[in-house]
Amino acid sequence: MSRERPELAVWMVGALGDIATTVVTGAGAISRGLATERGLVTALPEFQGLDLAPLDRIVTGGHDVRDASPVECARLLAREAQLFPESFVEATREDLEAHGKRIRPGVAFGCGTVVSSLEGGAARARRAAGPRAALAVLRADLRAFREETGVERLVLVHIASTEPKPPELEELATEEGARSLVERGDARVPASVLYALAACDERVPYVNFTPCLGSAAPGLQEAFLRAGVCHMGRDGKTGETLLRSALAPLFLSRNLSVLSWAGFNILGNRDGQVLEEPRANAAKTTGKERVLTSILGDNLGSALTRIDYVPSIGDWKTAWDHVHFEGFLGMRGTLQLTWRAADSSLAAPLVLDLVRLADLASRRGKKGLLPGLACFFKDPTGVEEHALSRQFDSLLSFARELR
Amino acid sequence: MSRERPELAVWMVGALGDIATTVVTGAGAISRGLATERGLVTALPEFQGLDLAPLDRIVTGGHDVRDASPVECARLLAREAQLFPESFVEATREDLEAHGKRIRPGVAFGCGTVVSSLEGGAARARRAAGPRAALAVLRADLRAFREETGVERLVLVHIASTEPKPPELEELATEEGARSLVERGDARVPASVLYALAACDERVPYVNFTPCLGSAAPGLQEAFLRAGVCHMGRDGKTGETLLRSALAPLFLSRNLSVLSWAGFNILGNRDGQVLEEPRANAAKTTGKERVLTSILGDNLGSALTRIDYVPSIGDWKTAWDHVHFEGFLGMRGTLQLTWRAADSSLAAPLVLDLVRLADLASRRGKKGLLPGLACFFKDPTGVEEHALSRQFDSLLSFARELR
Amino acid sequence: MSRERPELAVWMVGALGDIATTVVTGAGAISRGLATERGLVTALPEFQGLDLAPLDRIVTGGHDVRDASPVECARLLAREAQLFPESFVEATREDLEAHGKRIRPGVAFGCGTVVSSLEGGAARARRAAGPRAALAVLRADLRAFREETGVERLVLVHIASTEPKPPELEELATEEGARSLVERGDARVPASVLYALAACDERVPYVNFTPCLGSAAPGLQEAFLRAGVCHMGRDGKTGETLLRSALAPLFLSRNLSVLSWAGFNILGNRDGQVLEEPRANAAKTTGKERVLTSILGDNLGSALTRIDYVPSIGDWKTAWDHVHFEGFLGMRGTLQLTWRAADSSLAAPLVLDLVRLADLASRRGKKGLLPGLACFFKDPTGVEEHALSRQFDSLLSFARELR
Amino acid sequence: MSRERPELAVWMVGALGDIATTVVTGAGAISRGLATERGLVTALPEFQGLDLAPLDRIVTGGHDVRDASPVECARLLAREAQLFPESFVEATREDLEAHGKRIRPGVAFGCGTVVSSLEGGAARARRAAGPRAALAVLRADLRAFREETGVERLVLVHIASTEPKPPELEELATEEGARSLVERGDARVPASVLYALAACDERVPYVNFTPCLGSAAPGLQEAFLRAGVCHMGRDGKTGETLLRSALAPLFLSRNLSVLSWAGFNILGNRDGQVLEEPRANAAKTTGKERVLTSILGDNLGSALTRIDYVPSIGDWKTAWDHVHFEGFLGMRGTLQLTWRAADSSLAAPLVLDLVRLADLASRRGKKGLLPGLACFFKDPTGVEEHALSRQFDSLLSFARELR
Repeated sequence: MSRERPELAVWMVGALGDIATTVVTGAGAISRGLATERGLVTALPEFQGLDLAPLDRIVTGGHDVRDASPVECARLLAREAQLFPESFVEATREDLEAHGKRIRPGVAFGCGTVVSSLEGGAARARRAAGPRAALAVLRADLRAFREETGVERLVLVHIASTEPKPPELEELATEEGARSLVERGDARVPASVLYALAACDERVPYVNFTPCLGSAAPGLQEAFLRAGVCHMGRDGKTGETLLRSALAPLFLSRNLSVLSWAGFNILGNRDGQVLEEPRANAAKTTGKERVLTSILGDNLGSALTRIDYVPSIGDWKTAWDHVHFEGFLGMRGTLQLTWRAADSSLAAPLVLDLVRLADLASRRGKKGLLPGLACFFKDPTGVEEHALSRQFDSLLSFARELR
Repeated sequence: MSRERPELAVWMVGALGDIATTVVTGAGAISRGLATERGLVTALPEFQGLDLAPLDRIVTGGHDVRDASPVECARLLAREAQLFPESFVEATREDLEAHGKRIRPGVAFGCGTVVSSLEGGAARARRAAGPRAALAVLRADLRAFREETGVERLVLVHIASTEPKPPELEELATEEGARSLVERGDARVPASVLYALAACDERVPYVNFTPCLGSAAPGLQEAFLRAGVCHMGRDGKTGETLLRSALAPLFLSRNLSVLSWAGFNILGNRDGQVLEEPRANAAKTTGKERVLTSILGDNLGSALTRIDYVPSIGDWKTAWDHVHFEGFLGMRGTLQLTWRAADSSLAAPLVLDLVRLADLASRRGKKGLLPGLACFFKDPTGVEEHALSRQFDSLLSFARELR
Repeated sequence: MSRERPELAVWMVGALGDIATTVVTGAGAISRGLATERGLVTALPEFQGLDLAPLDRIVTGGHDVRDASPVECARLLAREAQLFPESFVEATREDLEAHGKRIRPGVAFGCGTVVSSLEGGAARARRAAGPRAALAVLRADLRAFREETGVERLVLVHIASTEPKPPELEELATEEGARSLVERGDARVPASVLYALAACDERVPYVNFTPCLGSAAPGLQEAFLRAGVCHMGRDGKTGETLLRSALAPLFLSRNLSVLSWAGFNILGNRDGQVLEEPRANAAKTTGKERVLTSILGDNLGSALTRIDYVPSIGDWKTAWDHVHFEGFLGMRGTLQLTWRAADSSLAAPLVLDLVRLADLASRRGKKGLLPGLACFFKDPTGVEEHALSRQFDSLLSFARELR
Repeated sequence: MSRERPELAVWMVGALGDIATTVVTGAGAISRGLATERGLVTALPEFQGLDLAPLDRIVTGGHDVRDASPVECARLLAREAQLFPESFVEATREDLEAHGKRIRPGVAFGCGTVVSSLEGGAARARRAAGPRAALAVLRADLRAFREETGVERLVLVHIASTEPKPPELEELATEEGARSLVERGDARVPASVLYALAACDERVPYVNFTPCLGSAAPGLQEAFLRAGVCHMGRDGKTGETLLRSALAPLFLSRNLSVLSWAGFNILGNRDGQVLEEPRANAAKTTGKERVLTSILGDNLGSALTRIDYVPSIGDWKTAWDHVHFEGFLGMRGTLQLTWRAADSSLAAPLVLDLVRLADLASRRGKKGLLPGLACFFKDPTGVEEHALSRQFDSLLSFARELR
């Protein structure tokens, strides 16, 4: 990433996480010609000629509840998880260090016990000050980021750990209600909502790559629309769910009935650790099943999804899906899938795609939800279509619109 | 199948094979309310209201090189392969026996040694008379079928064993050439071409569900077009290839490079036995790989497909596919698939779909190739698009056109 | 099973369950020459010449909390689960009906809510009378069985649903304590302990094929030894755990470190339904992991086992195991296993093996635990060796001893 | 490996192959405390106290038909195949370079076209001189190795590419015949036999880790016995076959009939390339199936094994095995296995085990075959027992004998 004339400033919530680290190292490595753009959807021929921010004109910063050095994080990812060669860490050290200097303490409201246990002192202090003060300080961080980098175009992307499913808060049905919750310091407002509000209030396009609530509640959608800021979420579609959204339509198109679809994921990174918390786990698996129920409808007997923490697996999430189906004259067949890939390596390029597209959409005057980005998400806010091929066609239309 | 007022007469080449047997038993069982239409694409809501031949108005007959009783074939399929309950055999005995009475000896030119070894006396005699006489007798059989059943609307569907890849015959480039080959009794003309010509000459819509050459050569296409008869092929897309055509686009849409795609099929039915012959095997695997090379293009490192005969597997074809892909910063992931389903149970409803749609298309005045049916085939003649979702959209358009 | 001169009377707790039904139908079908002895360990050449009870000289009866007809149960198993041809049900109807007449109401103390919901009226009444009365009536049932059948040699085999893990009861450390619990009507004593005591007091060799406590507590072991009755348990080793006990030693013998072993089971029969109850599930998975921890010791990083209820799977339990191992210079490999088999078909022949061997052991004067039978169990009481090959060698030695 | 006082000199045929490179780098890394002895069978507690050569007292050299630098080979293995960290290459550079200086041109008689295409000039010249001259020069190389290293104790281990199955040579039935073949320069004698003879004549214990003929023919066995030299082979049991030898006994011990066992291997290293040659492939798969036929006997319906070259897989051999079995009342289950591991990382420690054990056996006066080492081989010469657990017990007995 060129430090001379940056065009786009990307603020990552979860700035020390594996995805953020892979984003910074990856963008830096590609900028320096050490790696190709493989894995970036926006590098496909269909996106050539769009006025997307070049990877070497992106600067990064963000919030995190932990205290750590991005260089150390990257080294660990290279050595232990083998997401990229260790030589990339040295080559992009400058970017990683610059990124590290632009990290501010995050606020872990309603983030569950594992995340709380990782909280550094400054983050804890910010949380102690309550949601109202937190929103103010998050906004100030975004303004400072704009100022320090001298870059006008910002995008905020949420890539923090999965929050436990928050309590139902009726107030989130309207912007007014949502704002009153924050005003009166209601600690049940999850952190992801505060980050979304901060982005909205600072007119920063917002992307939620996690299953956290973020901007999905009607009150938040209202706020973004009113403020004229574009946003999209939620829950990046990277592995098992991506497969499901490509395969489930097959059964429909052959009039085969899916008797059951059971999926088991094992992973061993921090994400996996956080998901050991039952409520965080529930938040995650719900999105995974929605793809099936939405595509298959009545044609689905039962669905089951589990995510388990197996430390030795590290970042190389492995999923086994067992699909039991019925066809002609009651014939019962099975399809089994085993998927193995490094989760952060699947997520990082999509994060880069999303920030580039959200930035361009913003410049093209888009406001509110960006349904054209649905193919990137397990649970695309406001979009009913889950079949990957149709979602991808929508993305291509959206890209044509942005020309 | 109602014996009273049949509307559509289906002539099956391979009339004693597992698919034909499942077609007859299945249509009969559904007609009698013993089974649902599950597995029939034409039973999907999108096809409601089309003037398709009802299943209980279909009569069947066909060619086969073997001598056998359809009732016995069905009983074997029920008992050994468990494709349907044994009670269906008794319930549809009437249909199976009627079908048996309308089976004529097939002609096994260029069908390989396994098929030749199954040949009955009458079939051998027909083969001995040479291609020219064979064509005449096949045509006569079709005319007799029309007469005996009193049904005007015929469709011929080719579901015989895979022929060894035939020699390159330049003459097949034009209708004239093709006809001259037959005229002069050239024994290199594979049987499937003779069946196609017979259908063409008798103005019978033609469907080739096998990898055999059938109507695919330019000369044959010319003949069908000139005669104003519609036709389509080839090689029914039932299992592993169906999966591939749903999954390969996923890699493209995420800009993931497929380093290798290796697939191994085991099966134990007669089809498997025939494929032990290396040239038949080659004919079959070529189509399976074309789907990958066509969809992935440069994005595919290497492809490999094997089909092996494992007797104990019977009709329950089992396939393992290993997909090795590369993503962001060189990350290498794998996807493994295991598919297990009864091949004839997957094929039979598609055969019924195809004959119903070809018949309707013919009534709607369609001539020559029917590209709208591409989603049913591994290697759709004249169609470049192999992605299942796009092919399915074409089918739906085609269905709307046929209203 | 010959009704003329029965030699051995087998009392099954869970007499209407899938295993019991398969035992009765299977023994009957083999006796009538309709099926081979495939699957019976005692049919191996190594057991020829032992004075084991012939299958056609066995009569059956048992306890069950449900009210149902064995013929209906068998028909369902044949039709839905396809464990055996439907014709076997008619062929063995006489045995199934005789078995049905010898079923008495079971007692469901501490059996969990799913089992309670299945309880018939008579069973509920017996439970209401408390443990002390229950023990007396169970004993009376055994005596009546002996009398009615006129067979001196009895074996009781426990094949009821998995009980939730019972509370720690200190009293079970001694026979005296155990008896005092029952005497004073302590409702925490699980039903399986009562059945074991009934067998012990009636001098009936006892086999526990479930993870229930049964005769495993020291107090019960003491009782059996004092009474001079032989017994063994627990938890039949049929599928995934069988595999684990064959494979885990491989890693040891190559000095490969198992970083993690994660296993996921799906099944859809009543067993699966009962295991939806978390405490029953815990009782079951504990045994499955013990095999790994016992064989691999320090060489095992982490173990995980899940059993989930997927209705469409029925009796065809399907398990996926993912083994992650480390070898030379830190190389990390994986082994994945998928096992699919009908659980009751795996269990039923082992139940027949166990009753035949326990009966013979009893006649040869064996008392207390029968460690020679360890290979049949996931968690063999009193045996440390879990490696299948060594356990099988022990079985062969035991068989030689019984000559 | 200590350069000061080496104890044991290991001569590797295939000295530039992946296994040899991993052996040198691995022994060096362990000697320097960079890696543990994980993966070495001789590092198990059962082998403690045996007078085995320490890893840091081993020197290496060998034959190879190629010209290449071991340092480059190791760098490639680290970077591409990721068998070990790249830092190990620098750390053991001294060993790798010393090894490189002790490599002499190999002789590729009957080694197939792929190997011939790799042949360097010196190797080609040696082959041109014929078998008789070749044997003399191989012997001279061994003597020179002994002299240069100053180490008395030598072991030769054959880890070259798989030779095509050689023609049946009756002369190999006796030592006299074998020697006469060489004497008269019969070019049909495969290279592996010449290496074995060279070892025998130089009184060097010999281990054949490949499916090549080596010392397996009766005439060679006679020669070793007469010369009082110990030897063992053949075909290292590393992955799929190792699994089979652990799992096949399970089916026997439960009286389950294996209807079919089909296995498919994909790999992409030079070994894989060589196996594209059909005759080499046949030589390899024969051994893999022998394990099954030997353990299961009549209990095996059919067996099938394939090895295919898929370049992108590199050294990470991946195997899918599909086992179809029949149990009680005809129930048919399946077991699927997928194994993925780096082949050279599995082989290298076993090579170190074998040379250490063969050296010790030689010092303990063992002559001729070493059946105690059977567990290391797919096709252990002179040993009928293929079950892994029994073979491992034999190894432990053998180790006790060597104390």
